[in-house]
Amino acid sequence: MPDVDVIILGGGPGGYIAAERLSQAGKSVLVVEKESLGGTCLNVGCIPTKALLHCVKEFDQIAHAARFGVRADTIAYDWSAMQAWKDKTVATLVGGVTGMLKRAGVRVVTGAGRLVSPDTVTVGDQTFRASDVIIATGSVPAIPPIPGVAGNPAVVDSTGLLSVAQVPQRLAIIGGGVIGVEFASIFSRLGTEVTILEMMDEVLPFMDQDMAARLRSALPDVAVTLGARVLSVEGSTVVYVRDGVTERLEADLVLMAVGRKPLVDGWGGAEIGLEHTSKGVVVDDQMRTNLPHVWAVGDVTGRSLLAHAAYRMGEIAAALIIDPTSAARGQVMRWDAIPWAVYAVPEAAGVGLTQAECERRGIEVTSVEAPLALSGRYVAEHGLDRSGTVKLIAETESQVVRGLQIVGPYAPETIWGAALAIEMEVTVSDLRQLIFPHPTVSEGIREAAWAMKTQ
Amino acid sequence: MPDVDVIILGGGPGGYIAAERLSQAGKSVLVVEKESLGGTCLNVGCIPTKALLHCVKEFDQIAHAARFGVRADTIAYDWSAMQAWKDKTVATLVGGVTGMLKRAGVRVVTGAGRLVSPDTVTVGDQTFRASDVIIATGSVPAIPPIPGVAGNPAVVDSTGLLSVAQVPQRLAIIGGGVIGVEFASIFSRLGTEVTILEMMDEVLPFMDQDMAARLRSALPDVAVTLGARVLSVEGSTVVYVRDGVTERLEADLVLMAVGRKPLVDGWGGAEIGLEHTSKGVVVDDQMRTNLPHVWAVGDVTGRSLLAHAAYRMGEIAAALIIDPTSAARGQVMRWDAIPWAVYAVPEAAGVGLTQAECERRGIEVTSVEAPLALSGRYVAEHGLDRSGTVKLIAETESQVVRGLQIVGPYAPETIWGAALAIEMEVTVSDLRQLIFPHPTVSEGIREAAWAMKTQ
Repeated sequence: MPDVDVIILGGGPGGYIAAERLSQAGKSVLVVEKESLGGTCLNVGCIPTKALLHCVKEFDQIAHAARFGVRADTIAYDWSAMQAWKDKTVATLVGGVTGMLKRAGVRVVTGAGRLVSPDTVTVGDQTFRASDVIIATGSVPAIPPIPGVAGNPAVVDSTGLLSVAQVPQRLAIIGGGVIGVEFASIFSRLGTEVTILEMMDEVLPFMDQDMAARLRSALPDVAVTLGARVLSVEGSTVVYVRDGVTERLEADLVLMAVGRKPLVDGWGGAEIGLEHTSKGVVVDDQMRTNLPHVWAVGDVTGRSLLAHAAYRMGEIAAALIIDPTSAARGQVMRWDAIPWAVYAVPEAAGVGLTQAECERRGIEVTSVEAPLALSGRYVAEHGLDRSGTVKLIAETESQVVRGLQIVGPYAPETIWGAALAIEMEVTVSDLRQLIFPHPTVSEGIREAAWAMKTQ
Repeated sequence: MPDVDVIILGGGPGGYIAAERLSQAGKSVLVVEKESLGGTCLNVGCIPTKALLHCVKEFDQIAHAARFGVRADTIAYDWSAMQAWKDKTVATLVGGVTGMLKRAGVRVVTGAGRLVSPDTVTVGDQTFRASDVIIATGSVPAIPPIPGVAGNPAVVDSTGLLSVAQVPQRLAIIGGGVIGVEFASIFSRLGTEVTILEMMDEVLPFMDQDMAARLRSALPDVAVTLGARVLSVEGSTVVYVRDGVTERLEADLVLMAVGRKPLVDGWGGAEIGLEHTSKGVVVDDQMRTNLPHVWAVGDVTGRSLLAHAAYRMGEIAAALIIDPTSAARGQVMRWDAIPWAVYAVPEAAGVGLTQAECERRGIEVTSVEAPLALSGRYVAEHGLDRSGTVKLIAETESQVVRGLQIVGPYAPETIWGAALAIEMEVTVSDLRQLIFPHPTVSEGIREAAWAMKTQ
């Protein structure tokens, strides 16, 4: 006889949303969380970075407000006050998740959970049985075996950098993914000399290279070295090789930001035969693992390491536990309509397939770029001197929209409409006929639709 | 034999977009503009207000940046520098429209055009004939016959206030529509004592009253007096009656912002039998007037006084002139999917039907509000102390989304997705399954979809 209907291993975005949806449907739910509710995103990921980035953007705006008729003297930032705002934001939102679960009647057990059989989880000396188990153990920063990294106090991961006591004078960032680019934006705006070392030939591999290059070039005061393979870290100096030449980058602090890896070990799954690889626990498009009534959602699946993808995975697992026939109502993960956002300076966002991915899949597409400087609001807020752009990708014959990428202000807030467009399979003609409010930067999407060559 | 394919009377948003679309399709086009290309929106409407508002928001942010760890001394604004930014923005964008028409090969004639017959327009002593004529003469500020207004130097309309030499100490605004609320936001942030006098029992009549009340309450440092009927203006004192009691509001400047009226007179239409009322030139849903080959678009129709509605009307007229059979491909004005935006502090936007309008039409709907404080980005940027909200309106039985209104940051940039949702007739269930990027304020829309009671 189970103690609860569902046990969820991990209280991050995938876990807590699943808990909320399940309990709203009358299921009894137990969440096991070893650290803090909210997971990586809320405690050491998207939320604290956005809180800090907001502080930094305020500082940056003030430093450049003269052209808008605003004068101020002795402009300075207070890192500890920025940290306090960040901590307050995190505390508020962790409190929100805690309260939500409490109101929903979800039991939360703090400790390291262990899956000892498909229906049994232990936490210390407690044992719980459930009809269904959802694995939502998340991910951890990947630390490659580079000599001089382990145990080096001058090397931090994103969690460490978030609460660094002092703003470094020189920051070396190993890895030009979203973490590297966002931290580069934060610290460069505070006067830190920032250099990103990226092994590949462009940053942000989920973007088309032309758009990633636009964003990279627009990052103010950030040096980016592409094709740089790091050999070792000596103190706070990074040794790397580029075009066959060994170079040294001197810094005061080194951020290791080569990515995150799913947490597939240490909680029992491997020991009881849960199918997994180093890339994550293997799931189908409805979050089923190879073990009956064991589901996996979020980063641990390795399918997408984004909080909002985890939300949706959690909802799908919950929907299928609540009603196994709900599959018929479309409860399936649609991997090609997961938007992404980069909260850099400038911002960027996108959804759907890149042009490169379309080509790999043999989908014949046409693409077009429209400069945001065609938007009245963009000009009213930025003049003509920024490189904002919209790239629209549509199937050549059917004109169905397959992808959209934006570099420019408001992109993360604008992009959900493009996710809807892709889900609803709208055409370029539909987008042309749609009325966008004026004046907005989002009108750039409409401009792109009109700029696209149609047959 | 016509001189050109199409003559367009008026170079505002409706006119210049029609000119661009027509010329791209190979039509010869002549635009007659009596003042400046770009029309009200670009010269004395949306664009200059947004440029000023951006300046003012920068100032306001700096004044409240301490909690974000930003310190500055002797913060001051420079009105003439703000005016310069505004003027530069307008000049840039007017230059953009001018260049676009030139590149498109559109001929522009400056002067007051007159429609002397359905296919003939005169400008001074020049006469032009065309196969089709598009009327896009726009609108002018409505000045009600209130004693003491005409000729009073203390009374300005929006055009006058935009370039006022000095920021007034006390500003009385007659009319709580979008113009009144936006100017209230601009001047209150600069320290002006602002009072809005609104005759109706709520501001912003295109919003549901509950949402308009939220926005009104959130306007910082703006006094709003509802149910105030203005009797007269004496110098810079406004005399009004409220609940049967006569009151006097002393100010230094009075903004008359009771709305705008379509410019149906003075350009010949009335004289040649073009059907019109005081509310505008009568058009069908494809912009046809009662005269063959005479079309009307934009404010002059009185159907919507929004620049982006004018764009779409101009496009529809152009599409039907280019290809009269294009009606079959959906070239028809969809009045219920025109978004609106209020660029106040805070911002607001919406699209579709209000709940009140649904009730008037006998459409049974369910609505729900979701506080934006559920959004991690909102909290990271504002804490919990603002009153941001999303209101979602859907048909009770079918769950088809009929309306969405947002009070809060980024609303004007977020709302286009809701316009698409309404055009595509998506359901609440579709919205729940859509993946929104995290953390964004736009996630409030998803929260609303999940908060809605479904049957």
